[in-house]
Order: sequence, then C-alpha cells, then structure tokens
Amino acid sequence: MISRSQIKFITSLSHKKYRKAHQMFVAEGAKIAEEVLQSQIPVENLFAAEEWIASNAELLKGVPKDKIQSVDERQMEQVSQLSTPSPVLLVLRLPEYEYSPPGEGLNLCLESIRDPGNMGTIIRLADWYGMGQLYCSEDCVDAYNPKVVQASMGSIVRVQVHYVSSLEETIFKPGLKTYAAVLSGELNLHQLVEVNKDCILLIGNESQGLSESALSRADYRISIPRFGQAESLNAATATAVLLDNFKRLSKM
Amino acid sequence: MISRSQIKFITSLSHKKYRKAHQMFVAEGAKIAEEVLQSQIPVENLFAAEEWIASNAELLKGVPKDKIQSVDERQMEQVSQLSTPSPVLLVLRLPEYEYSPPGEGLNLCLESIRDPGNMGTIIRLADWYGMGQLYCSEDCVDAYNPKVVQASMGSIVRVQVHYVSSLEETIFKPGLKTYAAVLSGELNLHQLVEVNKDCILLIGNESQGLSESALSRADYRISIPRFGQAESLNAATATAVLLDNFKRLSKM
Repeated sequence: MISRSQIKFITSLSHKKYRKAHQMFVAEGAKIAEEVLQSQIPVENLFAAEEWIASNAELLKGVPKDKIQSVDERQMEQVSQLSTPSPVLLVLRLPEYEYSPPGEGLNLCLESIRDPGNMGTIIRLADWYGMGQLYCSEDCVDAYNPKVVQASMGSIVRVQVHYVSSLEETIFKPGLKTYAAVLSGELNLHQLVEVNKDCILLIGNESQGLSESALSRADYRISIPRFGQAESLNAATATAVLLDNFKRLSKM
Repeated sequence: MISRSQIKFITSLSHKKYRKAHQMFVAEGAKIAEEVLQSQIPVENLFAAEEWIASNAELLKGVPKDKIQSVDERQMEQVSQLSTPSPVLLVLRLPEYEYSPPGEGLNLCLESIRDPGNMGTIIRLADWYGMGQLYCSEDCVDAYNPKVVQASMGSIVRVQVHYVSSLEETIFKPGLKTYAAVLSGELNLHQLVEVNKDCILLIGNESQGLSESALSRADYRISIPRFGQAESLNAATATAVLLDNFKRLSKM
C-alpha cells in the first residue's frame, strides 16, 4: 500500500527541482531494477508487484525489508511515469561523484541535447563503447529525468554525467584533439584511416547543431556521409555511428 | 475552425483500423509538412496556425484553398497526437505502391520491431543510407502510426515500407547473402574487410532479437563489438551502426 504522501513525493521527483531538493530520483522497469540492485547505489524505496518480489528474492537480498513495499497495479499506475507501468519502481539517492575532466581515450561531449530519449540512448551508447564519463552543457536535459533513466536501460548506473558551465573550456584540453559532428565538414567519416586515440567527440543540439562558439574550439569538423535524401540523422543515431567508427579506427 | 466531426475523424486516424478503412493518415510538424508539400503526396486536409499559413504561401501553392483551414492553438491541441502540438497538421492519403522484392545493393529487413520511435528512426536511416524500400514482418508497428511518421522526420514520404507475410521467404533470395544482427555472432563488424555489395541486413525485435526461424535462413550472424558494459544497443542505434559499416565496406 502506498500512502497519499508517498504518491505525492514520488511523482514530484519527475521534476528536476524536487530531485535536487531531495537528492533522489526514480527508476522504473525490471531491467533497470536488476542493474541497480547489482550496483552500489543505495535503494531508498522499492515498490513492486507481489509476484515480482517473490520471484526476485536473490536480487533483493541486500535491500532492507522495510524499504520494500508491495503494490497493486492501480497503485503503480498512480506513481509511474511510463505509459505502460512496469512491475517495479525504485526511489534512489542521486549518486555523488567527483568531476573528472576529459582524459585519455575517447571522450564524448554534448551541447544542448534536449530530448530525454536521445539523452538516455546516448548514455547507453557511452556505456556500450566503454566510456565511464559523459560531458554535457548545462542546458542539456537532466540525466535523472525519468524518461532519460528509462531510455538508458540501466546504463545510468555506470556512466557519470557531468554538467559543465563552460563546454568551451571543457573541450579545450592540450593533448586532446576535438572532432565536431556537423552536416558538412571537411572530414568524411568513411575516409578517415585513423583518429587520435585520445580525443573528444562533440555532438550538438537536435535541430540547431553545434553553436559557433563550440565549433570555433574544435580542431576538425567531421561528417557522416549521406547516400540518400534524409536531411539529417537523429542526434542519438549520429552519435552511435560516430562512436562506432572512432572506436574501430582508434584500435588500428 | 475544426468541426466536431473533423476532430473525431482526425483522432480516429491514430488507430490502424481507421487508417486502413479511410486509407488516410496524419502527419504533424513543420519539417514533415515541408517534405510532404514538396512531394507528390496529395493533401486531403491541412490544418495550421494562421501565421504558419501566411509565412508558407510558396509551399502551399499547389494545395487547393478549400483544403486549408486555419486553426487556433486550442483546436490544434484537440487533434494533435504530440505532447507539444506543432503549428501544422496534415491529413494525407496512404500512398499505394507495388511490392518490389529485395534486389541489388543493400536491403534492410525488420522482424517484430514494436516501438514507433525505433521504426520512425529506422525509416529515416533507410532514407539517409539511400534505401527506397524497407521490408517488415507483419507484426512490426505500422509505418503510418503518428509516432512513426513523426520520428521519421519526413522520410516516410520517400521510403516504401513493405509488410510481408513471410519474412523467411522474403530474405531467401538467390544471389543475396543475408546478415543477421545478433549479440554474439561469428562475424565481428569491425573485423570485416568487405561485404557482398548485394545483400540483406536483418534486424530483430527490441528485446527478443531475431526468431530462430529467421536466423536459420541467414547466411551470417554479425555483431557490433562492445567495449563497455551495456547489455545491448537500442534497435535503431544498432541499425544505424550496421548500415553505416555496410555502406562503408560495400564501396571498397
């Protein structure tokens, strides 16, 4: 049974203001629950269908009994942010991590990414391609927005997302070359035969692309070759293609 | 002004059943409107904010006056399927096209893709990578679902989406090698040095992957190398990475 005040509290966490004030966020779904319960992230509360609790005893071993509440479908609907509520919802403490600037290897920086689905997908991509850090301008959507958490499919527990007040200063690192993703740059991704192993890949806003100010700090402008007529690629798919090519080329 | 019956008709088109019955679909957004109005697709009705109509006179040249209706924001909210209604909504006739089987070049086949965002993104990718045809098993989400149309960002007007009753028969084409995307296959995408120029790329369901039956018809099982810990990639981003590599390799 979830109390009225709990419902109010959980739904308030869909707003960044309340996530900041309470230092908590919500994660929903069996897949994400599994990842969280296997990680070091402390669980504040776990709400789940009785059957889910019964069949996940092993996973729940480390969670104090008084933090687990069984709820029915109707109650889950009241607190869920998903169109189809999942059998489990967790309230988690926002992780604290120290800022660690771009360094060796491939680094990914985002400017003004607004769509939660794109952000979550990019966090999942960063995780797939082995990046533990992600750098975002402050106007990017919050990484603990419920839709971002959902789209990250659990990768949010492994990737540290840093919001930086000046992306220009963040990418201006001696020793690290910066590649800016643009629609028509001087470098064609398919013609590259190598990339600097230590570098920064810079991705811009969904409709405006990168700002002049960010572009002016980049060493190269790189483009994904187009073979058909679509005007552009979605920000997350473009990031996927770029990361994949960079990882392939930096091993050579 | 939109009448009550028009509102009812337009919102009914969010269901496949009514799209089929009326042979019509809805497209929303300035970007998509632009693509549609520059294409051969006949417009049944266009609803837009007065300012949008005023500032797009050139684009609207070919549309009969009696098909254009100006609406205010409140009315747009009543018919829109988007969380943030756009200034323009079109009712369009479903295009008719003849079935054209997989042939020369790169062909893309989808099995059981259910998420409208993924389907729309994949249609946009097919368009970017120069494919005019896309083959889908019948249980894939409908290409004229409003969320698919939205995510395709206009590419739906250029890509012909064929729903086939037997994907197995569709991909069984002498002369065309089939590559099935799996999580751990015998081929590593980054180790390929060439691919058959004429081939089929087969992508499976978001959570289950490809069926045994589809896999058994494939010539190769191919995987995107993973460098980190994410369990999988989103279906649309995996498609992006595969298409990009295949286009790069088939030119060599």
